Amino acid sequence: MSKTIVALDCMGGDNAPFEIVKGAVEATNENKDILVKLVGVEEQIKEELSKYKYNSDQLEIVNATEIIETGEPPVAAIREKTDSSLVKCLYMVKKGEADGMVSAGSTGANLVGGHVIIGRLKGVQRPPLAPLIPTKNGAALLIDCGANVDSRPSHLVQFAKIGATYMENIVGVKNPRVGLVNIGAEEEKGNALTKEAYQLLKETKGINFIGNVEAREIPEGVADVVVCDAFVGNVILKLYEGVGGVLLSKIKGTITNGIKNKLGALLIKKDLKKTLKTFQIEEYGGAPLLGLKGLLVKTHGNSKAVEIKNSIFQCATFKEMDLNNKIKEKLTMED
Amino acid sequence: MSKTIVALDCMGGDNAPFEIVKGAVEATNENKDILVKLVGVEEQIKEELSKYKYNSDQLEIVNATEIIETGEPPVAAIREKTDSSLVKCLYMVKKGEADGMVSAGSTGANLVGGHVIIGRLKGVQRPPLAPLIPTKNGAALLIDCGANVDSRPSHLVQFAKIGATYMENIVGVKNPRVGLVNIGAEEEKGNALTKEAYQLLKETKGINFIGNVEAREIPEGVADVVVCDAFVGNVILKLYEGVGGVLLSKIKGTITNGIKNKLGALLIKKDLKKTLKTFQIEEYGGAPLLGLKGLLVKTHGNSKAVEIKNSIFQCATFKEMDLNNKIKEKLTMED
Repeated sequence: MSKTIVALDCMGGDNAPFEIVKGAVEATNENKDILVKLVGVEEQIKEELSKYKYNSDQLEIVNATEIIETGEPPVAAIREKTDSSLVKCLYMVKKGEADGMVSAGSTGANLVGGHVIIGRLKGVQRPPLAPLIPTKNGAALLIDCGANVDSRPSHLVQFAKIGATYMENIVGVKNPRVGLVNIGAEEEKGNALTKEAYQLLKETKGINFIGNVEAREIPEGVADVVVCDAFVGNVILKLYEGVGGVLLSKIKGTITNGIKNKLGALLIKKDLKKTLKTFQIEEYGGAPLLGLKGLLVKTHGNSKAVEIKNSIFQCATFKEMDLNNKIKEKLTMED
Repeated sequence: MSKTIVALDCMGGDNAPFEIVKGAVEATNENKDILVKLVGVEEQIKEELSKYKYNSDQLEIVNATEIIETGEPPVAAIREKTDSSLVKCLYMVKKGEADGMVSAGSTGANLVGGHVIIGRLKGVQRPPLAPLIPTKNGAALLIDCGANVDSRPSHLVQFAKIGATYMENIVGVKNPRVGLVNIGAEEEKGNALTKEAYQLLKETKGINFIGNVEAREIPEGVADVVVCDAFVGNVILKLYEGVGGVLLSKIKGTITNGIKNKLGALLIKKDLKKTLKTFQIEEYGGAPLLGLKGLLVKTHGNSKAVEIKNSIFQCATFKEMDLNNKIKEKLTMED
């Protein structure tokens, strides 16, 4: 098989370019079948590369002189900064010069660029952004968390199909359980969107639809694919972070507070930290923007090398599993 | 001032009637200006009362022979079980025989009954259910979490006004900060509902509108009144419980697991439990259904005496502060 080619936006995110380049070096050192095109300011990338041992036939620099900042209006940035690292990556995927791309840069610019430059797979109405979120004993795919809100029922059906295909082929969950986020377990519960989507999902072939899931059940891990409108997905994703963050700060306060607890704190702190880490969104790598003509993996703005590496590997699995053809098959299945 | 009269549904909830009656005894023993009408199966209430010292002129039994169960379809239950404790409470508020009511019974039946039997205050489009949710250093009012989804922008404006009035007068927060749940901080972000609601809220007089709040910020306590459609409110409320619950079980597992930690566990467990309790929804008492012709406080199904007592006190404050007139004033303020 030919090498997987990944375009890497080396200038996006809080830790660019050092952690980004480091991630590429680690990925290529671990997997010989990957070629990473390091897109960004050439001198800076060269300087970073000089710190490491790497295989020069697996890393190529593509010079880009501009940088899209996080705060910039996405549409204008994509249109005007044609020599930015992000826009160059997008065009490389569009032209087939790369199988997929990874960026820790502006979410808005990635979403807009994915739609406008890479373009949708035939039949896909709205490419969903689908991060993995932690559950009690694993992780679930939250689909959609993107920028397109006010979904129609048919969009949710596509999210269910695309999400199930991803979980089965990329994450390796057999016959993934697909749940619809709703405010009650019963079929007739919900708003206009979820009531209609429920009826469609019930009839949808090729997915394992388990019905409505209430938000309370999501962290418990009752579903592998959690389907919702992007507004709701966004609320879920951010509340996970918010509740988790505040709880952790309260716990930290307690275990370091008061003389009586000092001994207990020392004994327990390290283990607790390890446990709690398993419940942090950031530990689960980048979020794929699915349903495009190539894979775009959007990683957190504060991504470290390990997240970049895992996102590069995600692109490799995506190619290896021929995911886009599987998505196309699933979408055209007769309901 | 005349006594506040509270109708108490003694047969609703997992701990009925014992914890319910106990709560009424405690409330009346602490506050001489309250009269509680204990509505339910007379013999059972008498038996419970016989366990306590109480002021017989503050507790009256109103016999009701039927009980509405949690699983029953709400509309049918309210219509058919006319001699149930819940329906009797609703009629007592409607007829002015009670200033407010408290029930730990079926949420659906309480919501339907509140709308249909007690009825809306003049000018209120949709009476919102508004629980207090824990934040880093206090609590915020999440409005709406009721049964009516697919809100219109004008509903959200009413929620903002009603919620601000409640927080100011009942909870005692001066000039409460009102935030709109949205997927970004900027004015132009959101779905059709929030975009339009933002523009209306910006122009609304008599509230301290601070703009959009992202779900991540809610637990951090950036707003005192958190305004959203009931679907989103429901997701927030239940995800709070879900994420909190799973995190706590993980933490418990860690601190009781492994010999190395046994000593640490003993030292720290008690303090940690106390800290985490401040972040549990149940600790914040019942949720008021606002904008009705009297107050209905819906407490959790698993309510203990302390929650019932606090909910009875909530009815007293509601009367004392003349809340319904304040809500009416706020709603008719010129925008």
